[in-house]
Amino acid sequence: MAGIKVHGAVYSTATQRVSACLYEKEVEFELVPVDMSTGAHKQQPFLSLNPFGQLPAFEHGDLKLFESRAINQYIVHEFPNKGTQLTCPVSKGLGILSMWMEVEAHQYDPVASKLAWELAFKSMFGMTADLAVVEENEAKLAKVLDIYETRLSQSKYLAGESFSLADLHHLPVTQVLLGTQTKKLFDSRPHVCAWIAGITARPAWCKVLAMQKH
Amino acid sequence: MAGIKVHGAVYSTATQRVSACLYEKEVEFELVPVDMSTGAHKQQPFLSLNPFGQLPAFEHGDLKLFESRAINQYIVHEFPNKGTQLTCPVSKGLGILSMWMEVEAHQYDPVASKLAWELAFKSMFGMTADLAVVEENEAKLAKVLDIYETRLSQSKYLAGESFSLADLHHLPVTQVLLGTQTKKLFDSRPHVCAWIAGITARPAWCKVLAMQKH
Repeated sequence: MAGIKVHGAVYSTATQRVSACLYEKEVEFELVPVDMSTGAHKQQPFLSLNPFGQLPAFEHGDLKLFESRAINQYIVHEFPNKGTQLTCPVSKGLGILSMWMEVEAHQYDPVASKLAWELAFKSMFGMTADLAVVEENEAKLAKVLDIYETRLSQSKYLAGESFSLADLHHLPVTQVLLGTQTKKLFDSRPHVCAWIAGITARPAWCKVLAMQKH
Repeated sequence: MAGIKVHGAVYSTATQRVSACLYEKEVEFELVPVDMSTGAHKQQPFLSLNPFGQLPAFEHGDLKLFESRAINQYIVHEFPNKGTQLTCPVSKGLGILSMWMEVEAHQYDPVASKLAWELAFKSMFGMTADLAVVEENEAKLAKVLDIYETRLSQSKYLAGESFSLADLHHLPVTQVLLGTQTKKLFDSRPHVCAWIAGITARPAWCKVLAMQKH
């Protein structure tokens, strides 16, 4: 089967989510740059890879996928014996893993992404943060992190004692927030703080960050 | 292992999502009513089942889960040989299935749920629909449904030729929208219209609807 192509951008958090998974699995891939500044993701040929016009899109031979979390599900099941496992073959463990993956997607990411937009990305476009939106979403994130703090006092990682996709999916937007005032919400919760220190120090994630320097 | 308990409410779309999956799998379960009108989902003992305070919560023996889509992942993997398959054991098919499950969760549901709130649920609380919000979200839903129309001209169901979790997860909120003006967006797209007619007529889904009549 032909090699893996990730059509994306090094600063796209969803692209980083897929890249981190591929590095964890020690699977080689080619990053095909999509220039968001010219709107290439809203035009052909990219729309034939993802009709929703969002980064990244993924190719492995004749298989074409989009949606970063689904791409990662494919990767972990296609390469079960390479790199870090990242999933669980037992239904009970899979249920717990799926639950924390859903928590990331529906409880953490919407709030964290709003904060990342206000506090980090807006300034790149010469825009100013809306402090009322920041305050509202920091309060929401604090409640989510209180639940994480309890969970991480019971297990080393969200889905259990092993690093999994549930942890990995948090990395890109969390890394952005570590460079903002929102970092205080992580720092003030010891188990969350230790968890973030651990997952952001993983060699695979460091490789993703290094991609931004080229 | 002890029986399955779903702590939820018959009018909760997320509870319906899990009930539909259990009926498809022909797995017996007990629905334990949670009275949202008294805020029981935001208090103990429910919070010990789901710290986020959202319906439903799920118990199977000593396993406790929340997040409806994760519960369904557990069910299909725990009972692989019962009822409808609903998943795919091959990594390529699993990737495609995961992709359309993510599309439901991130592209369809947020927009469809906003419309259901404005056009169906608000009136139950004596509130009036915000027509600007309706117009904005109907325009968004139309774009999503254009992509579905193309997809469903190529395959009978979203993830391929078999009914799967990707289709099933659409049922609850879509059923609500069929009783609103938004129905026109489905009716005007022949493949979407046929797909909805097929999935809403499934015996498992009819059993979920019948639960509301008791």
